[in-house]
Amino acid sequence: MPDSNAILLVSCQDRPGLVAEVAGFMHQQGCNITRVDQSVDVEHGAFRMRMAIEKGEPDLDRSTFLEALSRLCERHGMASTLHFGEERSRLAILCTREPHCLHDILQRHESGELECEIPIVISNHETLRPTAEFFGIPFLHIPVDPATRAESEGRLQSALEEHGIDLMVLARYMQVLSPEFVEGWRNRIINIHHSFLPAFAGASPYRQAHERGVKLIGATAHYVTAELDAGPIISQQVIDCSHRDGVVELTRKGRDVERTTLARAVRCHLDRKLLVQGDQVVVFE
Amino acid sequence: MPDSNAILLVSCQDRPGLVAEVAGFMHQQGCNITRVDQSVDVEHGAFRMRMAIEKGEPDLDRSTFLEALSRLCERHGMASTLHFGEERSRLAILCTREPHCLHDILQRHESGELECEIPIVISNHETLRPTAEFFGIPFLHIPVDPATRAESEGRLQSALEEHGIDLMVLARYMQVLSPEFVEGWRNRIINIHHSFLPAFAGASPYRQAHERGVKLIGATAHYVTAELDAGPIISQQVIDCSHRDGVVELTRKGRDVERTTLARAVRCHLDRKLLVQGDQVVVFE
Amino acid sequence: MPDSNAILLVSCQDRPGLVAEVAGFMHQQGCNITRVDQSVDVEHGAFRMRMAIEKGEPDLDRSTFLEALSRLCERHGMASTLHFGEERSRLAILCTREPHCLHDILQRHESGELECEIPIVISNHETLRPTAEFFGIPFLHIPVDPATRAESEGRLQSALEEHGIDLMVLARYMQVLSPEFVEGWRNRIINIHHSFLPAFAGASPYRQAHERGVKLIGATAHYVTAELDAGPIISQQVIDCSHRDGVVELTRKGRDVERTTLARAVRCHLDRKLLVQGDQVVVFE
Amino acid sequence: MPDSNAILLVSCQDRPGLVAEVAGFMHQQGCNITRVDQSVDVEHGAFRMRMAIEKGEPDLDRSTFLEALSRLCERHGMASTLHFGEERSRLAILCTREPHCLHDILQRHESGELECEIPIVISNHETLRPTAEFFGIPFLHIPVDPATRAESEGRLQSALEEHGIDLMVLARYMQVLSPEFVEGWRNRIINIHHSFLPAFAGASPYRQAHERGVKLIGATAHYVTAELDAGPIISQQVIDCSHRDGVVELTRKGRDVERTTLARAVRCHLDRKLLVQGDQVVVFE
Repeated sequence: MPDSNAILLVSCQDRPGLVAEVAGFMHQQGCNITRVDQSVDVEHGAFRMRMAIEKGEPDLDRSTFLEALSRLCERHGMASTLHFGEERSRLAILCTREPHCLHDILQRHESGELECEIPIVISNHETLRPTAEFFGIPFLHIPVDPATRAESEGRLQSALEEHGIDLMVLARYMQVLSPEFVEGWRNRIINIHHSFLPAFAGASPYRQAHERGVKLIGATAHYVTAELDAGPIISQQVIDCSHRDGVVELTRKGRDVERTTLARAVRCHLDRKLLVQGDQVVVFE
Repeated sequence: MPDSNAILLVSCQDRPGLVAEVAGFMHQQGCNITRVDQSVDVEHGAFRMRMAIEKGEPDLDRSTFLEALSRLCERHGMASTLHFGEERSRLAILCTREPHCLHDILQRHESGELECEIPIVISNHETLRPTAEFFGIPFLHIPVDPATRAESEGRLQSALEEHGIDLMVLARYMQVLSPEFVEGWRNRIINIHHSFLPAFAGASPYRQAHERGVKLIGATAHYVTAELDAGPIISQQVIDCSHRDGVVELTRKGRDVERTTLARAVRCHLDRKLLVQGDQVVVFE
Repeated sequence: MPDSNAILLVSCQDRPGLVAEVAGFMHQQGCNITRVDQSVDVEHGAFRMRMAIEKGEPDLDRSTFLEALSRLCERHGMASTLHFGEERSRLAILCTREPHCLHDILQRHESGELECEIPIVISNHETLRPTAEFFGIPFLHIPVDPATRAESEGRLQSALEEHGIDLMVLARYMQVLSPEFVEGWRNRIINIHHSFLPAFAGASPYRQAHERGVKLIGATAHYVTAELDAGPIISQQVIDCSHRDGVVELTRKGRDVERTTLARAVRCHLDRKLLVQGDQVVVFE
Repeated sequence: MPDSNAILLVSCQDRPGLVAEVAGFMHQQGCNITRVDQSVDVEHGAFRMRMAIEKGEPDLDRSTFLEALSRLCERHGMASTLHFGEERSRLAILCTREPHCLHDILQRHESGELECEIPIVISNHETLRPTAEFFGIPFLHIPVDPATRAESEGRLQSALEEHGIDLMVLARYMQVLSPEFVEGWRNRIINIHHSFLPAFAGASPYRQAHERGVKLIGATAHYVTAELDAGPIISQQVIDCSHRDGVVELTRKGRDVERTTLARAVRCHLDRKLLVQGDQVVVFE
């Protein structure tokens, strides 16, 4: 049983009595509920709930608790995950040459803003090694070459396993991962795309935005799926622009939005505020 | 017992088991919970919960249900209100001469955006009578004179009672209500102040903003308390401005923000998404 | 010569000395320059300038002034337009059944926010006649039928000419205009599209947005061109949304953004702050 | 005469012919005008103009040009400053213990976003020395003690002079500078205040904001004047908050706004887009 705070995420078809069942169970187990956010997607009849609980009786062990929870979920057809507060996520950051997103995440991490471990920064270039090392994070260079992509992904996978990684953050990582790799990390890779998706998917979104003459540019943080730029959207932000902004200014403005949008998505993931239902991300905020 | 949807709002000191108690009660009564938003203000140990429920057994009557709920709340020291979906709020709009907020609310009401009745528009001037009447709402002119304020407030109070009003909306009503009157309508008067409170409280906020050279102007919707411009804040919005904006432009820009800020506050109130705890408004969104 | 304020808009290939030439000309003619906004699109070498001037000598006549200006522009290859403040634009609003944009523009017009005449509201349905008439604007019903589209457009064109219309505003007008018609009104038709273009072009953008799970919805005001939803963008705005917003909520939220985005575009056009260069709108603000 | 780009800022009482005079002068001197932003504050009759020019004839020397400009300005009572593009500002950053603003500016500088030299970072604590040194910027520790404030300010002044500093940026520098010191650096010290001034001036603005229950928090970048938190405002931004945000969350959210607001103010200063008139900052954007 939980000896500290924990977050329960539940997803299933809606049916009467689910909240009462789960709340009653927690009470029985001696756990106190400190926060509930529950709703139903009426159009699809989908039930979703995030419940924060606090440690209960000290004489019940965690495996007994988990087993009981598992039986409850099975009985009601609920898909659930339980995250204990002391199990800190282990995050790998992948980057290429642009420093702003990497820098931003490492600086937030250092300031205590992100509840996680960051055991490794991985890049297909050496450029950002000093940045990682300034923050005391080991840096791994895995060159990527179209001819040997499979081999690179093998090295990447090994490194992630070796460091016990739970979440990959693509902080302007300019390489496409194979569908097989992505499938193995379903809902555990967050990417930042530098446009307001679905507008300007693909390469050079700032150039596309400039040519179309839009008056706002944006950034989109999303889970990565096999289909490029089409994964479930976690967070989006925009910023004003005008005819005076050339591609250089749009790129500069965009960097600010990219950083905060990516950071917000990562924080929500770490705080167990995200739940993927169908093609959508439920953001419990 | 509820023969349709209902919203329960609960406020009390936090203690273990409250969610389970309430959820269990609803289940026992045959009610289905469709949405829960519950949290604890850790600094003050304050528990707050909004729970949407759907009708349960058809053979239990409402007074029995309410009595049982009342006993439950008493047992746990919970302050609660239960609003049935079919009990539509009855709203009075007070205005003076500026049409934009009145117009906006009446147009939203007509389009079905606001779940309420609007039996009366009241003003200290005749100016906006045609607007009210275009939307088919009776208009009552109650002149206000400093010398006869008490009498005017008496007429106002009578009109509100006569029309069974639950909520007063001050849509740019340029009169101060007496502390006694306000006390009788605690948390049932919403005002729109044309500044980002607490900045620029008092008169002529746009002039104050212009003189201070601020780069954003705002609006604040709040419950009215005896102390002017100091009531609990429900909603705030801002809009960019620049040195090119004189008082006239600030006023024009401000009107857009006033309208949407006031409308949002009124809608949240009508949807039972507001709960006043201490000096703060909990907005369940 | 101008006996009141005027706005000059200039567009041409950049070359040295243009600002000095035009400023010198105005000074010679006895006009005072009260505002200049001039820049160069470096990528295309495009010069653009908005200049506000005030009346000068009372003894020079306007036709002489205009002739001299015309010679200046010809000499330097400048495309220019001069708008005198007392020549108020004449605007026709086209709508179908949704009232919010029509209402908004008429209310702003009545409050003095929009510097124009509105001699006519035109619709393919009778629904909004009372709204137009409340604001004292004549309402013209022109039914549209696929089989007789050409005839309808003929009636529309006649009505616009009869009322001396300068600008058409499509305030949620749910009909497509023919390419021939559009060509005749180049840069003089403003439409509001209920999405953040180029995302979700076409029909049902709120439904598309909901299905894609975006976290922001938007609106785009643009000049109408023969290619649907592809005209030069004037103004864009967005608003936050979440998984809790179904299509109904997105539609409601979207209406607020549509209104303010369209109003801003119309005001910029009336204030002569818009200049179309290539596929882009220069917004002088 | 200018052998590269330059920015002219002009401020004076409005009178007819100023734009023509200056534009004509530039043309005579063989300079091309690439951008003009000029307006009049009608309420105070204040003329303000920013003009970007490009090099003209190669055979005229700069001192002759400056002398002629100076005579022109004198003749028309214009206060002006001319900044040549190749004269990069020299910026000193002052900080205390919080890294986020320092980090942000240094990272933007490294990425080429800020057109300036940063010869020195100065702090009253040793905490941020590694950050400065990672970016290759010398770090100077000047302890501040109430008893020896005058001496500390003397050391500070010497360091600024020694490094030829033009602009001081207080990046969360938690010390008050004396009125005498501030006077000597008029319009050359930019501070970031962590509230939407004038709301919540003084200490602990996030705590104040939390207690007042506001729904937005903000940051204000301003020039420092002798009166605390009352200097001319350059830039302001806000971010949404809710009842769920305690002081910790407000502080975290606020940091994002502080960074971008300060960076924007610094960039505008470096790009010569700021002009102080009276108590207001004209931002040429």
